[in-house]
Amino acid sequence: MKPLTADEIVVMFLALGTLLAVARLFGEAAKWLRQPAVIGELLAGIVLGPTVLGTLAPDIMAHVFPADGRSHLVLEGLTTLAVVLFLLVAGMEVDLSTVWRQGRAAATVGMSGIALPFAAGFVGAYAFPAFLGSESDSNRVVFALFFATAMSIAALPVIAKTLMDLDLYRTDMGMIVIAAAIFEDLTGWMIFAVVLGMMGGGEDHGPGAATTILVTLVFAAAMLTVGRWTIDRSLPWIQAHTSWPGGVLGFSLALAFFAAAFTEWIGIHAIFGAFLVGVAIGDSSHLREQTRATINQFVSFIFAPLFFATIGLKVNFLTNFDPLLTLAVLLIACVVKIVGGFLGARFSGISRRESWSIGFAMNARGAMEIILGLLALQFGIIGERLFVSLVIMALVTSIMSGPIMQVILNRPKTRRFSSYLNSRLFIDPLKAVRRQDAITELAQAASEAAALEPAVIADAVWARERVLSTGLGNGLAIPHARIRGLRAPLVVAGIAPGGIDFNAPDGALARIILLILTPYEDSAAQLDVLAAVARTFARADLCEKAVKAGSYTEFLALVKQAEGP
Amino acid sequence: MKPLTADEIVVMFLALGTLLAVARLFGEAAKWLRQPAVIGELLAGIVLGPTVLGTLAPDIMAHVFPADGRSHLVLEGLTTLAVVLFLLVAGMEVDLSTVWRQGRAAATVGMSGIALPFAAGFVGAYAFPAFLGSESDSNRVVFALFFATAMSIAALPVIAKTLMDLDLYRTDMGMIVIAAAIFEDLTGWMIFAVVLGMMGGGEDHGPGAATTILVTLVFAAAMLTVGRWTIDRSLPWIQAHTSWPGGVLGFSLALAFFAAAFTEWIGIHAIFGAFLVGVAIGDSSHLREQTRATINQFVSFIFAPLFFATIGLKVNFLTNFDPLLTLAVLLIACVVKIVGGFLGARFSGISRRESWSIGFAMNARGAMEIILGLLALQFGIIGERLFVSLVIMALVTSIMSGPIMQVILNRPKTRRFSSYLNSRLFIDPLKAVRRQDAITELAQAASEAAALEPAVIADAVWARERVLSTGLGNGLAIPHARIRGLRAPLVVAGIAPGGIDFNAPDGALARIILLILTPYEDSAAQLDVLAAVARTFARADLCEKAVKAGSYTEFLALVKQAEGP
Repeated sequence: MKPLTADEIVVMFLALGTLLAVARLFGEAAKWLRQPAVIGELLAGIVLGPTVLGTLAPDIMAHVFPADGRSHLVLEGLTTLAVVLFLLVAGMEVDLSTVWRQGRAAATVGMSGIALPFAAGFVGAYAFPAFLGSESDSNRVVFALFFATAMSIAALPVIAKTLMDLDLYRTDMGMIVIAAAIFEDLTGWMIFAVVLGMMGGGEDHGPGAATTILVTLVFAAAMLTVGRWTIDRSLPWIQAHTSWPGGVLGFSLALAFFAAAFTEWIGIHAIFGAFLVGVAIGDSSHLREQTRATINQFVSFIFAPLFFATIGLKVNFLTNFDPLLTLAVLLIACVVKIVGGFLGARFSGISRRESWSIGFAMNARGAMEIILGLLALQFGIIGERLFVSLVIMALVTSIMSGPIMQVILNRPKTRRFSSYLNSRLFIDPLKAVRRQDAITELAQAASEAAALEPAVIADAVWARERVLSTGLGNGLAIPHARIRGLRAPLVVAGIAPGGIDFNAPDGALARIILLILTPYEDSAAQLDVLAAVARTFARADLCEKAVKAGSYTEFLALVKQAEGP
Repeated sequence: MKPLTADEIVVMFLALGTLLAVARLFGEAAKWLRQPAVIGELLAGIVLGPTVLGTLAPDIMAHVFPADGRSHLVLEGLTTLAVVLFLLVAGMEVDLSTVWRQGRAAATVGMSGIALPFAAGFVGAYAFPAFLGSESDSNRVVFALFFATAMSIAALPVIAKTLMDLDLYRTDMGMIVIAAAIFEDLTGWMIFAVVLGMMGGGEDHGPGAATTILVTLVFAAAMLTVGRWTIDRSLPWIQAHTSWPGGVLGFSLALAFFAAAFTEWIGIHAIFGAFLVGVAIGDSSHLREQTRATINQFVSFIFAPLFFATIGLKVNFLTNFDPLLTLAVLLIACVVKIVGGFLGARFSGISRRESWSIGFAMNARGAMEIILGLLALQFGIIGERLFVSLVIMALVTSIMSGPIMQVILNRPKTRRFSSYLNSRLFIDPLKAVRRQDAITELAQAASEAAALEPAVIADAVWARERVLSTGLGNGLAIPHARIRGLRAPLVVAGIAPGGIDFNAPDGALARIILLILTPYEDSAAQLDVLAAVARTFARADLCEKAVKAGSYTEFLALVKQAEGP
């Protein structure tokens, strides 16, 4: 076989560039809409694939993303690598000690959350395989087992993100949900590995089904005990004696690749090995935060978008869309999972309201369901119709769990300080040199946005200011007031390069002045905004840098950086 | 073409895991030997490839690294991606403003350092193509142009690392070398792009040679002006409005992929586009250090090892080793480059000694030469014999430049304070209770080691002491003098548990007294030792602990601990 030709290399990089650019763009759009990035990344693939581009301009699509040939093969190899790395990272997010700490409640919720969906899914799929999209030639038991797993699996990253958005991650309820999701993830993937093992006999190289299942279970048990222990003991040595972070990075990835090769070889899929290695490595207290971040960032922002976008290239989501099947899958999935989680939580003595909330939290399926479906599609367990239904189910459950929990718990999302900023509410430089003039100038800008009299705002703020000055020190001042008739919180940022005296305790003049207005009726809103400011400006050097920003865009960039990812 | 089979996926991950693990291991070993990691990574490939493993166990090698077939193709695609990412990072290390700041001197050194090797390389290769390893069927002008480029190119990362090791990076000389190397890198790669362009006619899809060269030059110029400007203006917007660091990461890589596709399409190689994008992005002051680090770490520790290790898989370095050709290539390469750099530096008015040092610094070829050679091999410009010679030349020049510069500049690697200590030059406790007596007692011990009269030493130190007392405070005193006839620096450590008054600014009595003697002629030596003492005793508690040491071994252990790793 001759080496890659120039044409093939052109196609490879054109495809990679297009997939990455469009997937990242759609991923950002999803985030703007407060949705998980994976939704945008999948849509990018659907737009670039047969569903949209292939219908509108089949020639272009066939050229950039050839469905066959050597460029296609290389791209397939790359996405296989991408999904293996994604599972390594997903595994690293699993914190086994959380499961232990939550103990009985987590086990109850987790078991109930997996037992009910699994049982219902298995019985339903075994009884009505044709209705639930089974292909005529697939094994009835294998199909039912797959469908049961698909109903049971949880999406740890999406669930964790939803809990963080609602500021519930560090609560007891949050930890129970996370622990139960980890339990379900591990169990669900092991069951699916067994399902794939049952089909292992089909490959001429692999051992028989029983052997595959046995080896899988032994490997998983070894990885989570001896493997975990050995890695935990090795990491300090590697970090002490090799270049940093190259030693740990190389070690982690090489280990993941070997485990991937092994699990693929025993007849299940490469991703299982990578996932187990991820769990074992991520569990070590010796893994430094920065190493974790480097792997996480590169995989989440480069490999994951590439992988999820290529899914859209494989299937036509329009011609394979079966509304009845999709509705059935969606309904079954939601009912069994929510009820399962709810019953487990009630059984653990959790209040009715929180129990419903736990049920909805665990209902999110996200990326994991999609990877599961893709494997089943590749192994011929399911057809494209059911695959499309599963993808839609995964997206819908991920999108809806956050808002519904919000309604049930009556809990607003924590907003970041940057989300209050606006280029029209940014004054650089302020004309004022005295405190009261600065407040008047900022109030003038606010009055236009709020459709209120400037004097009303300025008076309220000045009244508050006279009670206690709002100079915080470090060059920051936050004059604020609760305003009657204001609909939503509003922040005006002013830069005073020369400094204005706001009576700060450290004696420094204020050079960043943030006017913070909140609705009079909503006393919690003021605390939220003030807390967001405090979090963001915790680092002393931010003020100094922000004064020199020079433009709203750079100011916003600095604030976002301070807020972190 | 059917999707990747399980066997192919097993081979892919087995190959990736093995390459990464062995390459990182050898890379670390190279670092322990104070050599660039790339040397170890290349050796890893040579061990895993036909040279060693292929000879000892051809079956194993053929199974893990098949020389043909679909797994091989996937691995080839991955290494193409790896080298493109490596050039993106290499480009990001280029700091155009350094070139401007060093101005005339850098331009003179850079031009001379490229003109002489290029001219000599071209004439030599054109006159004696067969002797210099040209394949019979290659175009004589193209071969001579390639050989000239191979002689001219510089290895920015290796050169920068060598300068840092010798503590010369931030000096004027260091900056001139770096600026000249950047100049040579940019020019060298552009010339090679033109060489590849001249061959472009061979590909049926590409435009003609003249068009290719023209488009290449226009693209490069556009990238370094308009492209650079646009990127610099876009980065703050991206950082402000997208998730961080995902936005910048995705943007950088997508841009690199598009540019790679474009340069491959116009008939040169994908790496040129990535390199130019790297230069343009890296030059922006808005690129944050952490984004740079994330890309750099992942590429340097994962993709670069994979790429350099696969080079060893391609060629048998033993059967293709031609001692005469290797020696010729090595000699020509060293002579033309060192003389070129030397002449340029002399012409800029730099001292003879520093000019030689600049010549040797610029002689390091490193990874860039190897990539250049590999491209030429793939394009059929050179054969495996010359490729092996070029790789060896690149390795030897990289290894030798550091030690030779050290000798020329007579610049020792910074010594640690502990390296001056000696059990025979350690007095615990001192009998003296007064300053002058303590100096006499320490001088007595020194006189035996230095074979000098005790009075000569004591008088010189006391003369210095009367000018300004050497009590540093914190219980430490450092009486010192430059002594005629002394061969090497010498330190005598005395412990005075009762304390001796050395007029320290903090009023404390000195309990650790270090007598520091240096050769009279070598004024730098005194500064070096004093600096080493200052670094080591920076922590106030060291003196206190050292007084209680009780033995020389414990004293040395405390000092070494204070010095850190």
